[in-house]
Amino acid sequence: MFRVFVLFFLIFPAFSQAPIRGFGNDQWKSEHDREEKATAIPQRERLKIYMERMASKPHHAGSAGSRAVAEYALGLFKEWGFDAQIETFEALLPYPTSRSLEMTEPVRYRALLKEPGDDRDQIPTFNAYSATGDVTAPLVYVNYGVPEDYEVLAKLSIDVKGKIVIARYGHSWRGIKPKLAQENGAVGCLIYSDPRDDGYFQGDVYPNGPMRPAQGVQRGSVMDMPLYPGDPLTPGWASVPGAKRLARADAKTILKIPVMPISYGDAQPLLEQLRGPVVPEAWRGALPITYRAGPGPATVRLKLDFDWTNKPVLDVIATIPGGVYKDQWILYGNHHDAWVNGASDPISGAAVLLETARTLAELRRQGWQPKRTIRLALWDGEEFGLVGSTEWTEKHQEELERKAAVYINSDSNGRGAIGAAGSHTLETFMREVLRDLNDPVTQKSLLESTRGGAGIAFKLGALGSGSDYVGFLHHAGVASLNLGFGGADVGGVYHSAYDILDWFHRFSDGELVYGKTLAQVMVSTLIRLADAPVLPFEFHTLSRTVHAYVEDIQKEALKSGGTVDFHDVQAQLTRLHGAALAYDTELTALMKRVASVAPEKLVKVNEALEHAERTLLLADGLPHREWYRHQIYAPGMYTGYGVKTLPGIREAVDAKRWDEANQQVHRVAQALRAMCAQVEEATRLIKLAGE
Amino acid sequence: MFRVFVLFFLIFPAFSQAPIRGFGNDQWKSEHDREEKATAIPQRERLKIYMERMASKPHHAGSAGSRAVAEYALGLFKEWGFDAQIETFEALLPYPTSRSLEMTEPVRYRALLKEPGDDRDQIPTFNAYSATGDVTAPLVYVNYGVPEDYEVLAKLSIDVKGKIVIARYGHSWRGIKPKLAQENGAVGCLIYSDPRDDGYFQGDVYPNGPMRPAQGVQRGSVMDMPLYPGDPLTPGWASVPGAKRLARADAKTILKIPVMPISYGDAQPLLEQLRGPVVPEAWRGALPITYRAGPGPATVRLKLDFDWTNKPVLDVIATIPGGVYKDQWILYGNHHDAWVNGASDPISGAAVLLETARTLAELRRQGWQPKRTIRLALWDGEEFGLVGSTEWTEKHQEELERKAAVYINSDSNGRGAIGAAGSHTLETFMREVLRDLNDPVTQKSLLESTRGGAGIAFKLGALGSGSDYVGFLHHAGVASLNLGFGGADVGGVYHSAYDILDWFHRFSDGELVYGKTLAQVMVSTLIRLADAPVLPFEFHTLSRTVHAYVEDIQKEALKSGGTVDFHDVQAQLTRLHGAALAYDTELTALMKRVASVAPEKLVKVNEALEHAERTLLLADGLPHREWYRHQIYAPGMYTGYGVKTLPGIREAVDAKRWDEANQQVHRVAQALRAMCAQVEEATRLIKLAGE
Repeated sequence: MFRVFVLFFLIFPAFSQAPIRGFGNDQWKSEHDREEKATAIPQRERLKIYMERMASKPHHAGSAGSRAVAEYALGLFKEWGFDAQIETFEALLPYPTSRSLEMTEPVRYRALLKEPGDDRDQIPTFNAYSATGDVTAPLVYVNYGVPEDYEVLAKLSIDVKGKIVIARYGHSWRGIKPKLAQENGAVGCLIYSDPRDDGYFQGDVYPNGPMRPAQGVQRGSVMDMPLYPGDPLTPGWASVPGAKRLARADAKTILKIPVMPISYGDAQPLLEQLRGPVVPEAWRGALPITYRAGPGPATVRLKLDFDWTNKPVLDVIATIPGGVYKDQWILYGNHHDAWVNGASDPISGAAVLLETARTLAELRRQGWQPKRTIRLALWDGEEFGLVGSTEWTEKHQEELERKAAVYINSDSNGRGAIGAAGSHTLETFMREVLRDLNDPVTQKSLLESTRGGAGIAFKLGALGSGSDYVGFLHHAGVASLNLGFGGADVGGVYHSAYDILDWFHRFSDGELVYGKTLAQVMVSTLIRLADAPVLPFEFHTLSRTVHAYVEDIQKEALKSGGTVDFHDVQAQLTRLHGAALAYDTELTALMKRVASVAPEKLVKVNEALEHAERTLLLADGLPHREWYRHQIYAPGMYTGYGVKTLPGIREAVDAKRWDEANQQVHRVAQALRAMCAQVEEATRLIKLAGE
Repeated sequence: MFRVFVLFFLIFPAFSQAPIRGFGNDQWKSEHDREEKATAIPQRERLKIYMERMASKPHHAGSAGSRAVAEYALGLFKEWGFDAQIETFEALLPYPTSRSLEMTEPVRYRALLKEPGDDRDQIPTFNAYSATGDVTAPLVYVNYGVPEDYEVLAKLSIDVKGKIVIARYGHSWRGIKPKLAQENGAVGCLIYSDPRDDGYFQGDVYPNGPMRPAQGVQRGSVMDMPLYPGDPLTPGWASVPGAKRLARADAKTILKIPVMPISYGDAQPLLEQLRGPVVPEAWRGALPITYRAGPGPATVRLKLDFDWTNKPVLDVIATIPGGVYKDQWILYGNHHDAWVNGASDPISGAAVLLETARTLAELRRQGWQPKRTIRLALWDGEEFGLVGSTEWTEKHQEELERKAAVYINSDSNGRGAIGAAGSHTLETFMREVLRDLNDPVTQKSLLESTRGGAGIAFKLGALGSGSDYVGFLHHAGVASLNLGFGGADVGGVYHSAYDILDWFHRFSDGELVYGKTLAQVMVSTLIRLADAPVLPFEFHTLSRTVHAYVEDIQKEALKSGGTVDFHDVQAQLTRLHGAALAYDTELTALMKRVASVAPEKLVKVNEALEHAERTLLLADGLPHREWYRHQIYAPGMYTGYGVKTLPGIREAVDAKRWDEANQQVHRVAQALRAMCAQVEEATRLIKLAGE
């Protein structure tokens, strides 16, 4: 018995007969065989060439460097025989024209605001969508500048009103820090990288090690993206040339106060001139000073101005037309714009997209054509606020509504375990992909090597914000995945002039083994999604996961002394549970003989399936932010990147707005009711197709 | 009902009729009245005078400065009319004659080893009882150098054998660090004060604030005191002139490797030249470096030599003879030697002892004479290893055995809450003293203001080591108390040249309000103990507390997978519980009419009571350290200061030596059996006295 058991597992992968959702039972082996050949194509040497070409110079959005990268990618796509073009938008991308920070009291210090090795193509250190301003005020140290920190300040009787706050990076998306500072009455905001968080406290600094050196600065956008991402002047519509635009003063996502990131080299002279109470231990960083809150006597003048003109945003799009379901799209995107050279962010991911494209081209040369249309995108303007992808989804919204089945995203890729997040309807699909590919170092299956740990517990985490899936998932309702390796390549060069090839080669995926593996993941993911007779969505995971979210919120409500009546949602979840099981029963029956079913009989099934995620949108969006329409996931209003699940309800509970929470239950129930109907319809259509 | 209740509490203290254990019911009021007058005598101005006189110059043990302080105190005692003298011992007090620390690889650095403002009377920075030595070896950073840290090093595959370790101060008594280094094969040990622990991370450094500046060094003894304290050459007997002595090589409490304390100014250049793994986050201090474990490449040469001659140790003893129970002693001591000026340690406490003495002199002038003999002691050589008090208890052991009822200790005193620890038989007594005096700042009773929190939960913590009660309690079996204010005066000048009057006045008990209050506590404690018709011991707390220790050890044993059979101890605790209740019943009966009982009828009762603590000793002491004879308390072998309760059993359990643990149960039971018999005998004698 024991020997048989062992033998079974030993031979199983070799025979490659593991089930693949969406394919007929008698198609599994041929699909495994095809993927085995396909995943042998990506080469590390090619990744190296793309990276050296794209990350050798600064290429922030709107710059000549960015145009050069876009045209290089366009040339490759065309060389590989794709229908490819650059789609251009004109978006508000502010560039700094004047920056100064000076401590005027109790001693003078003029901040350097400069990373060593600056060249003229390099955008200076700044936070995009800070206000223009010239303010002088005493400084207050606010730790990470998150809501809990303001509660601590209140206990210390420290008010930031009329002050300039200095927050450290970390523990929230950066844009939350100035947003909260502004809401609390501060007139300016500095954000610095404490060596405790990604400097010498963690390890040696570059060039001796991967961590942030004394003059390294984290650039980044502080646009109020939880309200809406993309061009602040065109919320909900595309910033194509000639489009109508808001007046800048009316754009709610632009900060009203000046904000600037600084290095710890520049922060130390300011922080050591603060008096007031010694801050709590958890607030203290690793600078050799006594951390105090202020206010003052350190008083600083922060003076910033920007070029507020529109600049070109260049999305590079390649298309491989589908041979059977031409109007069903599988999309895959990664941004190409960087803050400076961006070897890691985003070129490590963009290179993988190119190598995936080359692999598909090679497969086409060998005679393969996908059943569904594959669209590849290298987005521009991601760093400013997901601009290229957001404007593109807004421009193509009507077509996406009709045609988009799945959007796959990647961004920086590095050394470490695979991370996977996305729509719960794709969890079973993704588990199978990860089951069938091996980690390049452990040689165990990726499923066993996921960041969460052992394979059995694999879950697809919900998506908040932070990369280009936002427009697809939260606005357009396209089922999405976000994939990438990382976690073992800790460093402190994020968004700085130090994110260069030398850093990446020495401290991240230097041998590009994870890059090659990600290309294999992308190849498998794309060809399965493109070729499956039936799109591999599954709905039981959705009902189970949402049920867990409901329980979680109920606990939170109980803690806060409120009650939320989830009856309406529970009823729909029970119905969805039944519908998901019925769907799987019919699907299993069909899959025994799907090879003999004519593809045209499956068109309506697949259309019903790809629209399922759309049923989770409500047209008028979430409370206080209608651009975000998905009722199951959204980035948190005060976390920024961090996801809030069932956001309408959860954020009302967080704020103890009990009436709003109970109203939102009905809206979630409405979305789930539409999902149930959609799954039932898909089940009916499958039955029909099988007859 | 409610009004009566409130009224009761309001008028209660005013009428001063709260019960006082050991006094007859009709004596409570007069005792309260007398204490009220007595506690009005101590003056802050006087404390200031003593402190300025005693802390103006360095006065380490064996020095001319120490002799001057001793003679000043002797003069005061005599001026106040006491029988007083200096008892001189000759003990091994090593002084450093040559110290050097140099990094030889990978860059040269010669450590300063010098606090600013050194003068020629100031003893250089050193660790007493380090070995003489000259060693050169790669450095290893061992965090706090406690047993758990060596477990972490083992996981990192780092061996300290043949290396010099550098540990930071904190998380254990300092002597544990070189002891463990030596046991693990290190050839030398440096101990430094990380700014994380008492430097700028905690607050501003001196002179701007109370914390340790960059060149501040914590001196201190590293004698292996958990084995035995006092002169290493005379374990168990007094180092009087002419006494026999061990050869230095045979003294087990002297380290075999060179050890030296250094400042963080001197530590940083060494630590930043370590490579090897980045240490775990909890190991990282607040220096602006990446903390790594080594070994090396930092290689240091540590060269130390000492003057190993004997030097005079001058205990100043004053006696107020008792009028009724002349051969029952109440003792109170505080050391007078310091590492440098010692404004806080020990002069803040020594000054309180002097003001308590003056108060007693004033009471005598008014006609009072204590019933019992009061002996006041200013000990010398405490800093080297409790030398003056240990040698004194060894010298007077036979007389202490017969006469000592209670020893009261204090040491540094400062701003904050009262801390009280001691023999559990004195818990009820101490609770009453603290009930009857007010905190100088909160004006609530000290009982409500104890460090542990609200009064109802007051417990007298068990005593480990760290001050001069050790010889009395652990070796001579004299019931002991250790009292002092502190905790709100955090600083970083401990054992450094910065422990001076300016620091004390600005950052600790500047107005001496806590000093005055401690004098009031001492006055009340002394006159109650000296005058109570029946010594105020109580035994129920002992049985209850030891019962809790047993439960605690049983849990630990269970966790470690062993079993200890406590049956013998449990049986004695049950018996003690009954005996304690019977004792209290008889005592209560006697107290209703004790004023009419002739004192000579109570002599035997009081003798029985004062011998009760002695029953908890066993003549052959604890395993591996016979000098420590108390079976209920001892300092931990690997904590140093921290107490281990039921030490024979507990340390065997900690080490998973289950046979030894079970043997030790019988020894504890033997001690408790003697205690039961003693309490039963005291009960019988009380009954007899009352007849």
